[in-house]
Amino acid sequence: MRIGAIEAGGTKFICGIAETTYGQYGWEKPVIRESVSIPTTIPEITLQACLEFFSSAEPVERLGIASFGPVELDPLSPQYGFITTTPKPGWKQTDIVGFFKNALQIPVFFDTDVNGAVLSEHRWGNGRGLSDFVYITIGTGIGGGIMANGKLIHGAMHPELGHFLPQKHPQDVFAGLCPFHGACLEGLASGPAIAARWGIPGEKLPDDHQAWDMEAYYLAQASAMLAMTLATRRILLGGSVGMRPGIVEKARKILSPVLGSYLSWLDTQEAIESFLMNPLLGNQAGILGAAALTLD
Amino acid sequence: MRIGAIEAGGTKFICGIAETTYGQYGWEKPVIRESVSIPTTIPEITLQACLEFFSSAEPVERLGIASFGPVELDPLSPQYGFITTTPKPGWKQTDIVGFFKNALQIPVFFDTDVNGAVLSEHRWGNGRGLSDFVYITIGTGIGGGIMANGKLIHGAMHPELGHFLPQKHPQDVFAGLCPFHGACLEGLASGPAIAARWGIPGEKLPDDHQAWDMEAYYLAQASAMLAMTLATRRILLGGSVGMRPGIVEKARKILSPVLGSYLSWLDTQEAIESFLMNPLLGNQAGILGAAALTLD
Repeated sequence: MRIGAIEAGGTKFICGIAETTYGQYGWEKPVIRESVSIPTTIPEITLQACLEFFSSAEPVERLGIASFGPVELDPLSPQYGFITTTPKPGWKQTDIVGFFKNALQIPVFFDTDVNGAVLSEHRWGNGRGLSDFVYITIGTGIGGGIMANGKLIHGAMHPELGHFLPQKHPQDVFAGLCPFHGACLEGLASGPAIAARWGIPGEKLPDDHQAWDMEAYYLAQASAMLAMTLATRRILLGGSVGMRPGIVEKARKILSPVLGSYLSWLDTQEAIESFLMNPLLGNQAGILGAAALTLD
Repeated sequence: MRIGAIEAGGTKFICGIAETTYGQYGWEKPVIRESVSIPTTIPEITLQACLEFFSSAEPVERLGIASFGPVELDPLSPQYGFITTTPKPGWKQTDIVGFFKNALQIPVFFDTDVNGAVLSEHRWGNGRGLSDFVYITIGTGIGGGIMANGKLIHGAMHPELGHFLPQKHPQDVFAGLCPFHGACLEGLASGPAIAARWGIPGEKLPDDHQAWDMEAYYLAQASAMLAMTLATRRILLGGSVGMRPGIVEKARKILSPVLGSYLSWLDTQEAIESFLMNPLLGNQAGILGAAALTLD
């Protein structure tokens, strides 16, 4: 089967043709045959360029769009398939699903970029075989998706895992930079928060800098909160900060004292190693996520 | 249909005969025909007394047990149906499901007391019609259950909603009393935490005492965390503290500033009122919860 896939990001849209076959264990990990990267300028230009790519490529049977948010996912809403209240100039109330449905006349599947990543990790990555796990991406912002009982959690909208209020690290005097909450997880532990706290972008901070112990503390606390709240079986830390070498290992070390031996199922080193890890699909997670949206 | 129901608590076991009929909207709210309250002493005595009640009552077709925890809920575990690591003397590793299955030779359904309450509120209470909501009980401890996509979340065990780490109230100098985490939600906002902070049990604190603003702050923060994490559609605050008159109203007032207008679907007074409320079934939630476990 040939699937159209769009990873719709705030700086670029990646369009691809994903080919997969139905094998012994379900749909196999798609091969991306062609792809193109289109800058995110204004909808009229960006969406038109995506359309030209799909019109000139081999025809696809379905289209999956894994999008930056917030997006409307309630199928009963007249705004289903819209990018809604984004601060990104020109993109507020953009009917992205309607645009492609009308133009291509094929079924279009739509969810957040992180929910796409959850589905692709579930099918082909480190969430394989798990009915309950969480994917968190830590980069410019912090977002995430949750699978429980084998289904994505949507609720009234979609999870916003970056915006709960963690306890401050005892040595952290930074006030946090979330415009809504100040010291929420995103305000304290996103890439921009690290840069603002230390005056240097994270990429330039050495591995033995105190910044990473503090970062690991916040990621451990988010992981503990999710373990307590959901009894989830695994947490995948992605994004440029989550994928930084050594971060997962540091967060694992702090997780045990944060949990305080309360959860018997997480009370061994082995259990913690299997609980907290990076996603497997790396920078393919977005486009494979868009493809995965079409397969449920 | 006649259902046997056991609300297995740390101080008493309530056994009841619940009668329900299948009506236009599914199983109707059961009527409790007979019931008995048995003190929780040691398993040999308490479970035997329960058995005598069911043996002398009209026969039942199924038995539901909504139990204090922690309990083993993994059907693949050899300890399925056990109360496991409880500190309660004599009850560690008690095979409660096995006991009744062997003695009564009928199907036995088993979950935590709070998960039972989630199911009963879903069928007959303030969770009716909602595929995504949370029930939290605030009393001697703090626990809760989560329904997402119309199913209870179990994950690796069951949610432990009382043990995440909230941000401290700026005027709260109490260190928290959870033996595992100190200042987790249970350590800061349970009944014993209120009594230890102010030196007086909550029941004796007047309605205009600062204690209730602080309590409402922690409950609002837990509610915000669940709104962010799950985009859940409603939170029911139960238990002796959650049901105290005025607490829900106070928590609603604090919830808006804690959310910081981030979630558009929760950004009106009307939405907050529909989001945060008490459960409907009151002190019948336990026994109806046990009955509800048998109906899924």
